[in-house]
Order: sequence, then structure tokens, then C-alpha cells
Amino acid sequence: MRIGLLTGGGDVPGLNAVIRAVVKHAMGTYGHTIVGFRGGWRGVVDGNVVQLGRQDIRNVLPVGGTLLGTDRYHPHRNEGGLEAVVATLEAERIDAVICVGGDGTLHAASKVAETGVKVVGIPKTIDNDVEGTDLSVGFHTAVNVATEAIDRLHTTAESHNRVMVVEVMGRHAGWIAVNAGIAGGAEIVLAPEEPFDIEQVVKTIAHRHRAHASFSIVVVAEGAVGREGTALGAAAELGPQGQIVAGSASERVAAEIASRTGFDTRVTILGHVQRGGSPTPTDRILGSRFGVAAVDALQEGRTDVMTALHGERVVLVPLEEIAGKVKTVPADLLRAAKVLA
Amino acid sequence: MRIGLLTGGGDVPGLNAVIRAVVKHAMGTYGHTIVGFRGGWRGVVDGNVVQLGRQDIRNVLPVGGTLLGTDRYHPHRNEGGLEAVVATLEAERIDAVICVGGDGTLHAASKVAETGVKVVGIPKTIDNDVEGTDLSVGFHTAVNVATEAIDRLHTTAESHNRVMVVEVMGRHAGWIAVNAGIAGGAEIVLAPEEPFDIEQVVKTIAHRHRAHASFSIVVVAEGAVGREGTALGAAAELGPQGQIVAGSASERVAAEIASRTGFDTRVTILGHVQRGGSPTPTDRILGSRFGVAAVDALQEGRTDVMTALHGERVVLVPLEEIAGKVKTVPADLLRAAKVLA
Amino acid sequence: MRIGLLTGGGDVPGLNAVIRAVVKHAMGTYGHTIVGFRGGWRGVVDGNVVQLGRQDIRNVLPVGGTLLGTDRYHPHRNEGGLEAVVATLEAERIDAVICVGGDGTLHAASKVAETGVKVVGIPKTIDNDVEGTDLSVGFHTAVNVATEAIDRLHTTAESHNRVMVVEVMGRHAGWIAVNAGIAGGAEIVLAPEEPFDIEQVVKTIAHRHRAHASFSIVVVAEGAVGREGTALGAAAELGPQGQIVAGSASERVAAEIASRTGFDTRVTILGHVQRGGSPTPTDRILGSRFGVAAVDALQEGRTDVMTALHGERVVLVPLEEIAGKVKTVPADLLRAAKVLA
Amino acid sequence: MRIGLLTGGGDVPGLNAVIRAVVKHAMGTYGHTIVGFRGGWRGVVDGNVVQLGRQDIRNVLPVGGTLLGTDRYHPHRNEGGLEAVVATLEAERIDAVICVGGDGTLHAASKVAETGVKVVGIPKTIDNDVEGTDLSVGFHTAVNVATEAIDRLHTTAESHNRVMVVEVMGRHAGWIAVNAGIAGGAEIVLAPEEPFDIEQVVKTIAHRHRAHASFSIVVVAEGAVGREGTALGAAAELGPQGQIVAGSASERVAAEIASRTGFDTRVTILGHVQRGGSPTPTDRILGSRFGVAAVDALQEGRTDVMTALHGERVVLVPLEEIAGKVKTVPADLLRAAKVLA
Repeated sequence: MRIGLLTGGGDVPGLNAVIRAVVKHAMGTYGHTIVGFRGGWRGVVDGNVVQLGRQDIRNVLPVGGTLLGTDRYHPHRNEGGLEAVVATLEAERIDAVICVGGDGTLHAASKVAETGVKVVGIPKTIDNDVEGTDLSVGFHTAVNVATEAIDRLHTTAESHNRVMVVEVMGRHAGWIAVNAGIAGGAEIVLAPEEPFDIEQVVKTIAHRHRAHASFSIVVVAEGAVGREGTALGAAAELGPQGQIVAGSASERVAAEIASRTGFDTRVTILGHVQRGGSPTPTDRILGSRFGVAAVDALQEGRTDVMTALHGERVVLVPLEEIAGKVKTVPADLLRAAKVLA
Repeated sequence: MRIGLLTGGGDVPGLNAVIRAVVKHAMGTYGHTIVGFRGGWRGVVDGNVVQLGRQDIRNVLPVGGTLLGTDRYHPHRNEGGLEAVVATLEAERIDAVICVGGDGTLHAASKVAETGVKVVGIPKTIDNDVEGTDLSVGFHTAVNVATEAIDRLHTTAESHNRVMVVEVMGRHAGWIAVNAGIAGGAEIVLAPEEPFDIEQVVKTIAHRHRAHASFSIVVVAEGAVGREGTALGAAAELGPQGQIVAGSASERVAAEIASRTGFDTRVTILGHVQRGGSPTPTDRILGSRFGVAAVDALQEGRTDVMTALHGERVVLVPLEEIAGKVKTVPADLLRAAKVLA
Repeated sequence: MRIGLLTGGGDVPGLNAVIRAVVKHAMGTYGHTIVGFRGGWRGVVDGNVVQLGRQDIRNVLPVGGTLLGTDRYHPHRNEGGLEAVVATLEAERIDAVICVGGDGTLHAASKVAETGVKVVGIPKTIDNDVEGTDLSVGFHTAVNVATEAIDRLHTTAESHNRVMVVEVMGRHAGWIAVNAGIAGGAEIVLAPEEPFDIEQVVKTIAHRHRAHASFSIVVVAEGAVGREGTALGAAAELGPQGQIVAGSASERVAAEIASRTGFDTRVTILGHVQRGGSPTPTDRILGSRFGVAAVDALQEGRTDVMTALHGERVVLVPLEEIAGKVKTVPADLLRAAKVLA
Repeated sequence: MRIGLLTGGGDVPGLNAVIRAVVKHAMGTYGHTIVGFRGGWRGVVDGNVVQLGRQDIRNVLPVGGTLLGTDRYHPHRNEGGLEAVVATLEAERIDAVICVGGDGTLHAASKVAETGVKVVGIPKTIDNDVEGTDLSVGFHTAVNVATEAIDRLHTTAESHNRVMVVEVMGRHAGWIAVNAGIAGGAEIVLAPEEPFDIEQVVKTIAHRHRAHASFSIVVVAEGAVGREGTALGAAAELGPQGQIVAGSASERVAAEIASRTGFDTRVTILGHVQRGGSPTPTDRILGSRFGVAAVDALQEGRTDVMTALHGERVVLVPLEEIAGKVKTVPADLLRAAKVLA
């Protein structure tokens, strides 16, 4: 079998673990050939290919990023994109494609699958909002980076009696915010799942500082929004391309806290460091298991599916079941963040 | 409600997260009182108590070990033990006990429960072999420590063309070995689940070195044993108290590899560093969620249960269902470790 | 002897190591008493004191921040400040003061010393710009945090073919920028010591991308300024209190690179995470040795001095020799950063 | 100029930083050619050469080990060794050799230099015992690894009321033991510089446990020996090749502590993990600066010298001045470890 392999969307730690597992298992166990496409779906359209062998995956397990490069190009949103994908796959005699990506890239994968191409998806996103799987590759490392940052801010907040507002990634779901908030012992966590009331936030901080503390940590997901009708009800204004204006949520929250409480309040926007660097063991294991499962799926003739983690097991779920959905943080986890504050 | 709280068995990272969550949630949400017992079940027998308040749990979230101390004493195995437990609980007017422990401590908890005491268990063990839950507190940190060690040994193995044998914890199950082996890119993983054939191990290494590599990493769970009838069939001899003789598996494996291949072979026994130090974010979150769930269980009148992680959710499972069982590594995960070697 | 102890200025990792060493050595070796002032020189003025004992310094060695709190108050710049300091020291029968701080706090110390108070200073600053010592407490941890961030940005830059601009601390000297730049393998390092020419920066990046690379890392000290007469000659505009406008250097540099090269260019401002969290072993050792040396200095009757690291040895230098000076990065280290790009 | 480059002796983190700096600076600044020898001096004898270019050093800065491999072969101790070295260097038209190594490899370098070959040495050893330089490449990372291990053992010691004995590297000097001991807050540090009296060690621990503590950390350098005439006066017995018997010091110390105090006492031998893995920023910077300085030395016609760190500066010291000497821990640092216990 000739298997095409690509990584699309934003880079995350653990992609090289996936690539390594696909190459090792497909070649070593089944004798397949792996053709890598450089730069996501754009690499397929452009015919930017490289045959992957054992030497390409040497020592890449602990290395972040993706040795295949990545890109946010979506073939179905570009004139002639799907046709160009099919043409390249035929020219390269590709039997099936393993596509590693977040919701955008996997949505493209399902569109490609509709043309008759055999596709297996592997979920990756630091936001962890891909439906149908407990974890996506990259999320775990992002939580670690964010928690370590909160740990660092904790000591400086305490030494200076400050309110520290930390903005983490998460446009549509607050997985990083809630998990890093619990792990870092944050007092307030603002996630997209529950529009916040800035007056309540300010009251909580003020009460805490009167009662027993001299500092607070507030974790804000980049997609957190104020409740309609409250002071920051429009916290997350949209930019010209519909994107969230960078930093707006955290900076407005901090400004309100500072002006209403008088406390020394500082903002830290973690940004790109959340998506880079050496993957945690969990992301290496998850990526490795997903890579093995994707190759096994093709071997068994299962296609148009996505590898997924359900508890301790890796399973396959139909790509169409997860398309267009956003997995948000469940209520009990949001509550845990609150009662632990 | 007056809730007793104890941590028993070997210490693991994340116990303080449990204690903090129990105190914060029980006091803050429900107004309960938390009475800590120092030194596990022995502390109950001895009446070694301390009332826990907000000041006791300040800044403990990132700190390893347990602020309550721990001990391997089991009341039901000692004359008058259970009676002494009941006496202390009555004297302290304890309504229910939250008991954090591994299989031994939880087994004791079920014996205490049989006397009519209300008990909720929380699983912790770096071996991850408690039945009924995807994860136990402490395991995740241990995998991280072991993976980091394998990463370190990797570079020195490669620079010196060596075989490095690493012994990790895991007497009855190879969870750490398999996970750290995959995450660290080990060539061979020996786990208790599958008795090994040393001749096959040696052949694999020799073949690898002839074909394309100049070094190998072999991860050995402390409870790994040779297959009956093979050279190391009795690798894990038992000491006078029935314990596994320290280091025997890895040292014998290394000796066989060295003598049969002639390769420079070195042993590293990770030992106690696997169970200490700051918990990973995952263990802090797991411990925190379990603590919250245990308090909620008592609030809802659920007892003789253990908190457990099933996928993304924390659930309750009957203590009796998990007693005396060992959760071993499933076949597909053992296979993943092999095909990725 | 009754020794007063305070930490002033911005908090840095390693301050608790100093406090622990002073308490352990002064009490344990000489039987002195340690009186801590909470919140830097303001704590002296306000008489905010606490007697420190063994229990206060338990487990604080790996903890960031300062258990005494800190503040940027300078007694000699406030009406009646010095008089209030002297009054408190007399009321508390303090024989000598150990003052841990950066240039501002140490300058205050020398002013206090002029009133006849016996003072020993200990240098701390993440900027490493205190004259007379190879290292100040906190700098080493900041370099580690900044390097880890650059490592993380490296993989994402490479996966996406981006220019990543990273702003690190350093208003008057580029110690963090140059060291983290070398350690992280940055292509460009902009430090206050050498005003930069943005055209040259752009040319270097463009040449690199044409020749052999698809991404670049640019490290910018917050105090980096453009050379007079160049496009960014006024990069570091001053705010109303004379402070550097936050982020201006890196954001303007990034904007110029993006508009002149067309490359996808992103900015990360590390900010407060550089000054928090667990101190590196180096900062723990440095803080511990400085604490021991300060107590020994008082024991030997040496005052109005600062502890300093000269190579492998800890020595004492007169406070007046270092007052008002800024230690900048030497030419050979700046050159190393360039030839390694 | 054609420059030969080799790494000899045990591998340490930071060697790739040296190689990268030599290649970048020699090629980029001066247009020289770099010929690498694989496997230390043995590679020179065997003519195992590789021309190094920009692609060889890509992404190696954060990677431990040495991409050139290493070996403990010494040409002057083997019949015909020096002649073979000279023959290879002539055949490869090598103008000068940069040799990265510890005392053994550098001693070989000085013997090679006596034949007329131009040599510049760069010191590397995790033991930090090379004379003439404040730091050698690799030492700093080893201290970090050892400190992190002590931090981990700390929490488990405290939770279980144990004495933890940790053996770290250091045959002839206790640099790692003393530094990691201070950084980790160890109660006892045993270094080769000061033969210990086990009775005094036991007394200190017993007194500490009676007075205020329930656990202790004892750090033992592998070369620590008992004072003559005391119970462990022969702790470090020599093996057949004159080497220290592995683990003997720490295991005997632990056995004595356990039997004399009755405390639960455990041993951890850190071993190879101390010399592997990603180098700390400090080792990356040191290796990079040494590499630049070695190339500059050759450019200026300076040979038979070693690069060295003196305070903040990198200088050159004659190879002959450092040959055969062991740099031991100075008395004031040994004392600091004691007063901080």
C-alpha cells in the first residue's frame, strides 16, 4: 500500500510522534510505503512530496513541531482545490491518506473523502475541542506550558500583592483555561462556555483579598466573553476577518479589575509558547498510539474514520460524526474549577 | 458533617492536591469539618489527628508527598486494629472517612466499611494497577520522570554505542514501563504482563545493531519475569518477606545481553525518584477532581465507593468491585510498544 | 547580634534561598537573632516586623518569590523616610541590616548606611546589571525561562515558516537577551548595548531565508533601541514617568520586518513569567552562598559592603563602588551572539 | 585553514553546542573547513572522518550527547598511537586540531601537541575537576539533574520519615555533591575532599531527628571515602582496574546509618542520567563560547592552550599548566554546605 501522510492546521507538539509511528508501523509491520506531503493540504495540491524512511524519523519523538511542515490551506474552499488533490494522489498512486489535523483540516479531509479518496483522520489541536475523542494531540503539552506559567506568576503575585491575569488559548472552548486553572490553583477561570459577569469577578477578588489573601490569579481563555448586558458584554470584539482581537478579553478584564478594586493588576498573554516545544510523554504516547491505530484502520479497510481516545482505549469514530462540532468543557469540570478557587 | 481524611500506602505526587480539594470543597461549599489523620490507618488507630483549615493547604498544590504523612499499616491485619479504628472515629465523632490509597489501603477501607463506617476511597498508586479507574493519582508523574530519564539515557547510549537497561517501578503491572517506553522511544519493553524470552530479546538487539543502529534502550518493569523454561525464567526471585529482590530483573537482563552480544551494557535503576517531586498538571487535576467528587459523594449519601476516571468523567464505583483486583496493561497497548520499537 | 533582613525591589527566584541561609547560618552557627521586615524598606519604615525562626524557612528553598514580601519604596526619596528607618531599627534594637535588592534597593542601603546604620547588601536582579558581581540572584532563572520559551517558539517557527520576535526583560542591559539568544540559537539579538539598524536586521533575515532557512528567531531586550537616524531610532519611546513603553521595541521591530520582508511575523512578550517560579539550582546556590557570606561579613565587622561572585569565589565589595553603575554585556559576548547566528 | 575536531572521553550535555559553534564560526566568519573525527582520538587513529557543514549542526543545540560520537582511547598509551594520529592529520591536511575532552583527553592532546601538532583544548566533564577553568562543559547540567532528583526524594523522605542516601558522580572531586547538596537542601554532603567519619554522620542525623525533623537527605559523591581509622575508612575499595567499586560508598553509608539509628534508610544511585539529556542554557552558552574562542585562538596563532572561563570572561590557559591536576572544591564552599544543613 502507498499511504499519503500530511499534517495540517496550526502546529502542535506530538505531530512528529504521529509521523514516526505511521512510518514505523506501516513500513515495519506491513511493508507499506509512506509518502509525505509537505505543508498540509497545500502540499498535496502542489505535489510537494517526500518519501519517508527510517532515517527521516530518527530522534524526532521528543521534538516539537512537524517535520512535514504545515499550512492552513483548505482544498474545498479554493477553486479547483479538490480536483488538484485527487490529481496528485493519482499521480503518486496513493491508496489512502492519513491526515493529522484539527477541525478545519479534518473537515477538509471529509470533503476529500467525498470524492472517493480513502482517508483516516487523526485529531490534533491544543484547544482540545475536536468532538468524539477524550484528547487530541498537542492539548496536553499546552496545559503543561500554561500551568508552568501560572506557577511562575503565582510566586510573583504573592510577593507583590498583585492580581495576575493570564490569557491562554481556547477560542471556542476553555479546556486549557479550566485545566491549567485547576492545576495552577487559579482563583478565577473565565471560559467561553460560561459568559462571565465582570462585577461578579471583581466581587470575588475583592472578597478574597478582604478575607484572607493578598493576591489573585485570573485565567482567561482567549475566547471568553462577558455576559450580555454586563460591562464587558462585548469583550471579544471581532476583527475584520472575523477573528478574535488578540488579547482583548484579558486586557479588558484586567483594566476593569484594576479600576474597580484599585489592586495592582498585570496581564500576561502566553501566546505561541503554548503550541511549541518538546511534547509531554502523554502527547508522545497519544500521537504514537493514534499513528499505529490509523495504519491498522487502513489495513483493516476502515476509512473515513478518525482515531479517538475513549478512556484507556483507542477507537475509530466516523469522520462525519465529528464534523462541524465543537467539544466544550462539561459542567462538572467547570464547577470543579469554581469550588477549588 | 465531620469528615475524616487519611492518605495511606506509598507516597505519590498529587496527594496534597486531593487534601486541598477535600478541605476547600467540604469547608467552602458545604461547611463541613475536616479531621486529618497523620500517618494513614496507623494515625486512626493511634488517634493522631489534626483539624485541617485553609492555612494548612496554602501553596501545597505543586508540592509532592503528603502533608498528612503516610504509612503501610493495615488495621484488619493487626489484632484489634479495626476496633481501634472504630473507637477513634467515635471519639472524634467522625461521620465518614475519605481514604486515599492504593490496593492495600483501599482493601483496608473496605474492611473498615464492613464495620459500618461510611467510607469513600480515592485511588492513588504510581503503578496504575487499581481496578476500575483509567488513572490513579501519582501514575502520570511517575511516567514523566521515567520518560525524562530515558530521554537522558538516549543521548548517552547513542554517543557511546551502548545498550542501556532501565528499571522502572511496576511489580504486578507494566504501566510505567510500557508508557515510558513508548514515550522515550525504547527498543524493548519488558512488562509483567508478558513473561519475556531473553533469547528473543538478545536477538532483537543484535539484529537492530547489525541492521541500522548502534545503541538500544531496554525498559524493564521491576516485576518483569522470564518465561518459564527460558534462561531467566526465575528472574524475579522473592526475598525473605516475599518482596521482589531489588534490581534483579534489570541486572540479570543486562548481564545476559552483555554476555551474549558483547555490547557495552549498563543498568540504571530509577527507584524512589519516580514517586517524589512536584506532581504534573495531570496529577494535580486528577487529585483535585477526585477530592471534589469524594466530598460530593458523601454529600449525596453515597458510600463504600471509590472515585474513578472513566474517559473525561469522574464517576463512583463500588469499593467491593475493585477489591483484590489488579488492572494490567491491555494487549493493544503492549503491542503498540512492540511495533514502535 | 540582632540582624534585620529585608528584600526590596522586584521579586526574583532565589530570595527565599537567601533568607533561609541567613537564618540558618546566623542562628545555627552564631546564635544571632533574625528580625525580618515585611515589604522591603517600607516594612522598616512601617515597623512591619517578624522574628524569623527555623519553622519559617522550612521547605522554602525551591519556592520562588520572597516570604518577606517586597516593595519598591526608597526611604531616601521620601520625606522622613531615613529618619523612620533609623527609628524602627533603634526600637527593634537592630545591630545591622542585611538588605537584598537591585540597584535601587542597594542605593537606598548606601543612603541608610550614611546615617551610621551597619548594612550588608546582597545583589538580586533578573537583569544582571548590578556592578561588581558576575551574577546577581534571579538572573540565572530568568535566562532559563527565556531559553525554554525560545526553544518552544523554535519548533513552531520552523513548522510555519515564520519570523518569531521574542521580547525579554532588560531595560539598561541585554544580559537575558544575549544569553537566552545564544542558548536558544536565535538568529538576531537586539540589546541596549548596541543600538540596532532595522535595515540591517531585515537584510540579515532576508538573506538567511533566501540562502538556506525558512524561519528566524529575533530576541529583543525590552530596552533595545534603534540607532539614531535609522527608521526605528526612537523605538523605545519613554512614557510619562520616564519608563520604557511596554513592548514597544519588539512590536515595532516585528512590524518593520513583516512589512519589509512580507514574512509571517509574530511577537511574544514573555513578561512576568521571567521573574517567577522555582529558582534554578544555580540561583539557589548563589542565594545560599550570598546569605552565608553576608552573615560572615557582619560577624567579622565588615559593613557597607555587598556580597559578590568573582569567578568561583564569593567576595565583598564596597557598596559605594557599585552605586549608580550599570553592568552591561561585554563586547566579546555580544560578538559571540552574532557569529553564532 | 582545515581544522580537525573531536570529542573524547565520557559524553556530556553541551558537546553539540561546541561542535555547532566551531562549525558556524570557523566556516561563517573565516571560511575555514571543519573535519570531524568520529569517536574521539580513536577516530583520528582510524581515519574515521566526516566533513562538517551547516546541515550537520541544524537543531543540535538543545540535543545532548555528541554527534561525533566519543571514545576513551588515548593515543599516547597505545603502541603506535601518536604516529597514527600524525599520519591521519597529514593525510587529511589538517592544520590544527580542536579537542574537546576531560583530563584524559586533554592530556592526550598535550602529548599530541608535543609531536608538533597544533592543538586547542576545550574542557568538558560533569565532574568539573579540570584545573584552570571555573566551569567545564556538562557540569552544570549534571548539577541540575542531581538537584531535581534530590527535590523528588525530599518529598518522599518527608512523607515516610526516611533517611534518603543519594549517590552522585564525582570520583576525585565533590563538585556535583556539594552544589546539588546545597541546591537540594541536603542535611549531609560527603565529598572526596574531606574523608568522613561515619560516627559523626550518624550523630548529626540522630540529633536532627530528635530535635526537629523526621527525615534526612544525605548526598554522597561516588568517590567519598571514610576517614582512616573510622568504621568506613575503606569505604571506597578499588576494583581490579583500580576503579571505584560502583555504589560502594553510598550503600555502605546507608547500611551504617540504618543499623546505628534504626531509621528507615534508602539508597538511590543516580548514575548515567546525570550525563545525558538536553543541556541547560548555561552549558549551551559555555559550549558555544568555548567553541568560538577556540576558533579565534587558532586564527590568532595561539595553540597548545585550553579555553577557560574566568568569571565572566573566556580566556586561554596553557595546556601544560592544567595537565595532571585535579580541581577540588574549595574550603569555603564545603563549609557553606555544612552550615546550611
